[in-house]
Parts: sequence; structure tokens; C-alpha cells
Amino acid sequence: MPARDLFHENVRNALVKDGWTVTHDPLALKWGTTDLYVDLGAERLLAAEKENQRIAVEIKSFVSPSEIEDLKNALGQFVLYHDILSRVAPERELYLAVRESTFVSLFEEPIGKLLLENRRVRLLVFDPRTEVIVRWIP
Amino acid sequence: MPARDLFHENVRNALVKDGWTVTHDPLALKWGTTDLYVDLGAERLLAAEKENQRIAVEIKSFVSPSEIEDLKNALGQFVLYHDILSRVAPERELYLAVRESTFVSLFEEPIGKLLLENRRVRLLVFDPRTEVIVRWIP
Repeated sequence: MPARDLFHENVRNALVKDGWTVTHDPLALKWGTTDLYVDLGAERLLAAEKENQRIAVEIKSFVSPSEIEDLKNALGQFVLYHDILSRVAPERELYLAVRESTFVSLFEEPIGKLLLENRRVRLLVFDPRTEVIVRWIP
Repeated sequence: MPARDLFHENVRNALVKDGWTVTHDPLALKWGTTDLYVDLGAERLLAAEKENQRIAVEIKSFVSPSEIEDLKNALGQFVLYHDILSRVAPERELYLAVRESTFVSLFEEPIGKLLLENRRVRLLVFDPRTEVIVRWIP
């Protein structure tokens, strides 16, 4: 069983509060002979539905000493997940869940703005204390 | 001074043999307040020229216990470097240098093929023993 991110439950609760139904926890992801969870030691992906929308959510704590290193890791994982999902479940949109404090310190800075301008990631910004989704950046 | 990748010199020599002039080693990369070398602890990027072509080269050993983990890291770094380079030096194309053995075990497998089909990375494939560039995948 792959590890849960530190804020896994907070994001799950925030999604439920926002009217989403969690359909898979974890959502398994394989491509060819590669099982992302086994080979990547990846955190669990959540899958959720609301009306006609289906999403997968990658949750990242950004708690290592280097936020840029965390960003690089989240980005590489996002691209891998995105490209596999677009083949195996093209109707499901992938989001990266980050805390509001991470959003401010990374994605309101030039490096994060650049990635958002280039549509490298979709973001779900959450408050871990209140367990509320603060913002979606599709 | 950022660390050199294990195969840094091999790639440098292979480029020179292939008629390239190494113009920057390392090539500094900053965006906003982020200095990628300081904040990412990144390996040195090489910059080279040949006739009218300018390239930057990210060298990755892929020697950790998990090749998929290495792939994720290389990919995240490639996307960051690519997006910054396309703003600060749009004429310079970024390549990821990988050994022939890495090419075979990752990029001839479904996961790597998917990334190449989606044009997520450009590759420079080298033989570390003979220090020869075996293949370019633009």
C-alpha cells in the first residue's frame, strides 16, 4: 500500500465538504509494465466525482527543506500521471493539491507563475486547518 | 558550485567529438528570485553551439535504485529548465542526456515512449565508454 501524504485526509475531507464523492482512494495507475505506486513509491492518488466532473488529485505537502526541490518532484510526478491518465481515463482531469501557504510562496512567485502560465499543472488550493478548498486553478 | 553529474565529462567530450563548442559549463539559470542551482541543488547544465544551433544539456545518470523515480526527477527538472530557458534564451533548445542503457530500459518501454510521443523531453543518447553521441531525439 503506497504511503499517504501528510495532508491526505484534509484534502479528502475538503473535497467531501465541497460536494464531491470520493470514488477511489487510492486510484491505481499503471502503464505498460510500470505500476506507478510500486515503481515510484508514490503517494496515493484520490479520485472524485461531482455531477459530470471527474478528477484525480495528487496531494503534495511541500515540507522538505527546499520548496523548489518539492516543486520539481511534484511537477515530474504530475506530468507522468497526467500523460498516463490521458490515455487510460481521458475524461478525468488531474489536479495537484497544495496548501494555501505553498500556493502563496511558490505559485504567486515568478517560478510558479511561469508554470501556471504554461499550464503545466492544475491546482486545487486547500486550507489544511479548516479543511476547505480555497481555490481551483484549472 | 553545483555538483557535476557522474557522466558530465563523458557528455562534454562526446559533444566536442561531434563538432560542438561548449560555450558555458555551467550555464547559469535564474528566474525571478529563484536561482535553480542554489534552490534545486541541481547538476550543472552545459551549453553548446554548432553552426547556427544552440543547445543546453541536462545530464542525468539514472543510477538510483528506482529508474522511475529518476525519470520523475529528470522530467520535473526538464520542465522547469525548459520553461525558464524559453523565456531567457528562446533560441536555445534543451536536451536531456541519457546513457544508451537508460534509453533502452526506459524510453523503449511504454512509459518512456508515452513521454516521447507527448514531446515531454528531447533526448541526447550517449555511450559513456566510447564518449560518442549515439542518437538525438528532438
